[in-house]
Amino acid sequence: MVNPEIPDLPRGPLDAYRKKASFDWKEMAIFMSGEDILAFKRHLFTALEKDPIFARQPGEDLSVEKKRELTFRRCKQLFRYDFLPQEKVVQNPWMHAVFNSCLSMYDSSLMAKYMLSKGMFSSTVTRMGSERHKDFVQDIANMSTFGCFALTELSHGSNSKAIRTTAKYDPNTQEFVINTPNIEAAKFWIGNLGKTATHVLVFAQLFTPDDHCHGLHSFIVQVRDPKTLFAMPGVMVGDMGKKLGQNGLDNGFVVFHNVRIPRENLLNRTGDVTPEGHYVTPFKDPTKRFGASLGALSTGRVSITYTALTNLKLAMTVAIRFSATRCQFGPSDDEEIPVLEYQLQQWRLIPYLSAIYALKHFCRSFFINFLELQMGIIMKDSSERQAELGREIHAISCSSKPLSSWTVQRGIQECREACGGHGYLAMNRLGDIRDDNDPNCTYEGDNNVLLQQTSNYLLNWVHLKHHEGRRIESPLQSVNFLEDFNKILQEKFTATSVDACMDSSVPLAAYRWLVCFLLKESYAKLTQERALRKTEFEARNNSQFSIGSTTSLMMRTRPPA
Amino acid sequence: MVNPEIPDLPRGPLDAYRKKASFDWKEMAIFMSGEDILAFKRHLFTALEKDPIFARQPGEDLSVEKKRELTFRRCKQLFRYDFLPQEKVVQNPWMHAVFNSCLSMYDSSLMAKYMLSKGMFSSTVTRMGSERHKDFVQDIANMSTFGCFALTELSHGSNSKAIRTTAKYDPNTQEFVINTPNIEAAKFWIGNLGKTATHVLVFAQLFTPDDHCHGLHSFIVQVRDPKTLFAMPGVMVGDMGKKLGQNGLDNGFVVFHNVRIPRENLLNRTGDVTPEGHYVTPFKDPTKRFGASLGALSTGRVSITYTALTNLKLAMTVAIRFSATRCQFGPSDDEEIPVLEYQLQQWRLIPYLSAIYALKHFCRSFFINFLELQMGIIMKDSSERQAELGREIHAISCSSKPLSSWTVQRGIQECREACGGHGYLAMNRLGDIRDDNDPNCTYEGDNNVLLQQTSNYLLNWVHLKHHEGRRIESPLQSVNFLEDFNKILQEKFTATSVDACMDSSVPLAAYRWLVCFLLKESYAKLTQERALRKTEFEARNNSQFSIGSTTSLMMRTRPPA
Repeated sequence: MVNPEIPDLPRGPLDAYRKKASFDWKEMAIFMSGEDILAFKRHLFTALEKDPIFARQPGEDLSVEKKRELTFRRCKQLFRYDFLPQEKVVQNPWMHAVFNSCLSMYDSSLMAKYMLSKGMFSSTVTRMGSERHKDFVQDIANMSTFGCFALTELSHGSNSKAIRTTAKYDPNTQEFVINTPNIEAAKFWIGNLGKTATHVLVFAQLFTPDDHCHGLHSFIVQVRDPKTLFAMPGVMVGDMGKKLGQNGLDNGFVVFHNVRIPRENLLNRTGDVTPEGHYVTPFKDPTKRFGASLGALSTGRVSITYTALTNLKLAMTVAIRFSATRCQFGPSDDEEIPVLEYQLQQWRLIPYLSAIYALKHFCRSFFINFLELQMGIIMKDSSERQAELGREIHAISCSSKPLSSWTVQRGIQECREACGGHGYLAMNRLGDIRDDNDPNCTYEGDNNVLLQQTSNYLLNWVHLKHHEGRRIESPLQSVNFLEDFNKILQEKFTATSVDACMDSSVPLAAYRWLVCFLLKESYAKLTQERALRKTEFEARNNSQFSIGSTTSLMMRTRPPA
Repeated sequence: MVNPEIPDLPRGPLDAYRKKASFDWKEMAIFMSGEDILAFKRHLFTALEKDPIFARQPGEDLSVEKKRELTFRRCKQLFRYDFLPQEKVVQNPWMHAVFNSCLSMYDSSLMAKYMLSKGMFSSTVTRMGSERHKDFVQDIANMSTFGCFALTELSHGSNSKAIRTTAKYDPNTQEFVINTPNIEAAKFWIGNLGKTATHVLVFAQLFTPDDHCHGLHSFIVQVRDPKTLFAMPGVMVGDMGKKLGQNGLDNGFVVFHNVRIPRENLLNRTGDVTPEGHYVTPFKDPTKRFGASLGALSTGRVSITYTALTNLKLAMTVAIRFSATRCQFGPSDDEEIPVLEYQLQQWRLIPYLSAIYALKHFCRSFFINFLELQMGIIMKDSSERQAELGREIHAISCSSKPLSSWTVQRGIQECREACGGHGYLAMNRLGDIRDDNDPNCTYEGDNNVLLQQTSNYLLNWVHLKHHEGRRIESPLQSVNFLEDFNKILQEKFTATSVDACMDSSVPLAAYRWLVCFLLKESYAKLTQERALRKTEFEARNNSQFSIGSTTSLMMRTRPPA
C-alpha cells in the first residue's frame, strides 16, 4: 500500500501518457527518495506555496535591484522557518543535500544566498576557527549579522596561492591591518557582499611584525554596520552589477584601506599569532598548512555535482511534458501526433533523462564517501588511508562537478531547442534555468582546470607504478582497474549486436579501455616534453591538452545519442 | 600602401600580442572584405556612435518595455538614415548581407525589427503581390505604416501546411473575411506584431464562396490604426511577453474575429479570386503552387547562416582579447602568463576562430549561388536546371543554417566559460550574444527538422540512382561525389602523421567517406522499415534518427578540437 499522503497528480492532458506507465509513480518516488525525504519535500514546498513572499509570476520582468531585494527578504524568511534544524541533519545528513536541491528548484540565487551565510560562512568559521569565534556563528544563526566568504580577487581565482590581500599584525594595538595593495587585489565576485553582508571571511597573506609572510590565512572582517548597512571606515564595498543569471544573489567587491580588526578575528585552527606577534602553528610543512586551510573548499564541488542536477530535472520536466502535449505532423493531414512519439525527439531528450537517474545515484553514493572523509577530519584521523581518501575524493569531485554541470548545461539547451519557439518564452523558465546553472561550470574551480586535477591524479598513479612499483589501489577502488592497464589495452571490442551492448559490462569495458588509452597517450606526451629539457611548467603546458583530454574527452562526450 | 582611411587600433595592453602578428591587419581586412565594404562599415558605425539614440551602457538593466520602446525609436532612426539605398544593393548585393551583419553587431533585435518590416514585409509583398500592392510597399518605405509577416500559429510552426486561419471570400461586398477558428490558430511569435505593426502579411487557407479550400495564400490585413496604434475592429492583438533574448523585438499574437479586408489585399502572384468569387491560378498542380508561395521563406535560412556568425565574431573578440590580457599561474610564483599561452585555452578557442573564417567564406560563395537562383526566379526561368538549383539550395541552406547557428551557440558558450567568472558579468555581453543567437537554432525551421530535409534530399538521390539509374549531379556539384559512392566506401584512412592530415584533401576524403557511410546506413534502415509494411510515415519516424543522423551527426561534430 503506497503512502496515502502522497497527493495524486492533477488531471489534464498528460493523463493519457501517465496511464501508459508500466510502474506506479508513487512507488517509484518512494524507491528513489524514501518516505522521510518525500515528507520533508512536501512540508517545505507546501510552506513556500502558502507564503505570499515566495509568490512569483511566470515570465515576470523584475529589475536586478528588485530581484536582490526580494531574494534577501525570502532569505530572511528561510531563517525564520528553519526547515532543517541541526538535529535533522545529524539524523540523516543526506537531508542537507536534498534541502539545497529543493531551494534550488525554487531559485538558485536564494539557495546560494542562504547557504553562503548560514552554511559556508558558519561552517568555515567553525572548522577553521576555535572557541573564540563562537559568537560570530551565533550572530549569523540569529540573523543579527549576515556573512560571506571572500577568497577570489579581481586578478586571481583559480590560482589562489597568488592572492594579494595582506593582513599585517600590529603588536602595539594587538590588531591585524587588512589591506588591498592594488586594484587587482580587490576581493571580487563574493556572493552576498554586493548589498547585504556585514561580515566577510577574508583570505589574506599573513605578515608578522618581522615582515615575514606566513601564507594564506582567513580573518573575519566587519564591512558594514548591521543596522544601517553603511560601509565601515576604510572599507570600499559594492555590487558587481548585472550577471547572466542568479541575479537574486548580490555578488560584490571590497577594497580594504588598512582596516584594523582584533587579533582574535584570525581563524586560528591552522596557525595563530601571539599577542607579541609570534607565529605559531601545529603544521611543520607550509604546503600541508595551505592544503588544510583550503580543505574548506572541497565541499563546494561535491555539493554542486548534485545541485546542478536540479536544473536538469526542472528543464526535462518542462520539455518532456511539452513534447507529450505538442502535436505536429502525423500519418495523415487530419491526424497529428505528439512530438514525443518522434524517434528524433526521443533521441534528443531520453539520454538526458537517463543521465538524471545515473548522476543522482552517483551523487548519493559519493555523498556517503564524502561523509566518511569528513568524519575522519573531525576525528583527526592522520592515517595514510585518510590522506589517500582525501586525494581520491578531490580527484573524483574535480571530474564529477564538470561532468554534472556540463551535462546539465547541454541538457537544458537541448530542452530549450526541443520545445521549439515556445521554449524561447521566458515564462517557461528554460532560460533562467540555463543561466542559473551556467556558473556551476566556473565557480569552485573552472571545469577545464579541474579536469587537469583529475588527470594529474591519474598520471601520478601511473608514475608511482612505473617508478616505484606501487600497486594501484585507492580507498574507493575507483582507480584499481588501472592495475590491469596493459591487459585492458589489449582487449578488443567484440560485441556484434545492439542487444549485446545492453549488457552494462560492454560499455564499461569500452570506457576502461578509453581511460587507459588516453592515459597512456598523455603520459607518453608528458614524458616526451620533459625529455626536451623544458621546465616542468612548459612540459605540462605543451601537453596540457593531452593531459586535460584524458578525462575531458570523456566529459565532453554527449550522452549516447 | 594600405588604405590610409582605416584608423589605427587604440593603444593598450593588447599591443604586445598585436606586434607579434606575421601579417598587416589592415591588408588582411581589405583582403577579407574589400575597400568598399570597409568604407561602408566605417560610415555606418561612425554614424551610430555619434547619434545619442544609439548610446548604451555596458551591462545596463532595462525593462522589457523600455527595450522595446528604445528599439522602435532606433528602428525609425534607421529609416531616416537609409544607409543602404536600393541602388547600392544593385551595385553590390552582398552589401545587404553586410548591412544586416553590422546592425546585428549592434543589436540583433534592432536588425530583426528593421528587416522584418523594411525587408521581409516589402519584399514578400513585391514578390507575391502585383501592381495593385505598390502602395503598401511605399507606405512601409516612408514609415507611415509598419509591417510584419505572420505564418506561424500557436499550434503550428514546422508543419505550415496545417495552418488553420481562414480567408473566406464574400462576393456580395467583394471582401475576404479573415477568421481565427480557435485559439490554436492564433498567429503566434510574429516579430513586430507585439507593439508596433500596423499591417500584417497573413497566411491563411483561401475559401471561395463554394466552400472549396484552395490552400495557403497570403493577405495584407491592417491590425492597428497607424496614428494611435489601437487595434482595428475584430482584431485581438498583443505582446508575447519576455523572451530569453532579443527583447527589443516585440513578438506578438493576433486573433481575427471575422475581419473584413478588400479583395485586392490578396497577394495574387500564385492565385487570385475574381470579383464574382472564382479562383484563378497560373499553376495547375496545387503542390507546385504551395511550393511557390512558400519560396519566400528560403531567404531566411541563407541570411541566418551569415548573421548568426556575427554573434560568434563578437564573442570571440571578447574571449581572445580577455585571454591575451588575463594572467594566471606561470613558470614561477612571481611570473604569471596570459591564459592565451595555455595550450588548453588555444584548443578551446582557436577552432572557433577558424570556424568564423571558414563559414564566412562559405556564406559569401553560397550567397552568389543564391543570387543566381533569385535571378532565375525573377527571369521566370522554368528550366530543369533552375528547378534542380532550387532543390539543391534548399537542401544546402537546410544544413548550413543548423551548422552555423549550432557552431555559434557552442562557440559563444565556450567563450563565456573561457572567460571564467568575468565572462558571467552582463557588461561583457556574452550572455546577450548567446541569448540573441539562440533563436537562430529554431526560427525559419527547427534545426533538427531542417536537417531531415537535407538528408531526404540526399536519400532521394540514392533512390534515383538505384531505381532509375540517374547520374548523381547537381548544378552546384555539391552531391556529385556520391556518384563514386561504392568506391569511396572502400577507401581506407592511410595518413600516418599529423602533418599528413594538414593536407586538406585528407579530412575532405574522411568527410566524404562519412557521408557515404551514414547515407548507406540510413537508406538501408529506411528500406528495411518500409519492407515491414508500415506506412511511409511510420517508416520514416522509425528511421528518423538514422535519417537525421546522416547530416546531423556531422553537424553536431564540434570543430576539430
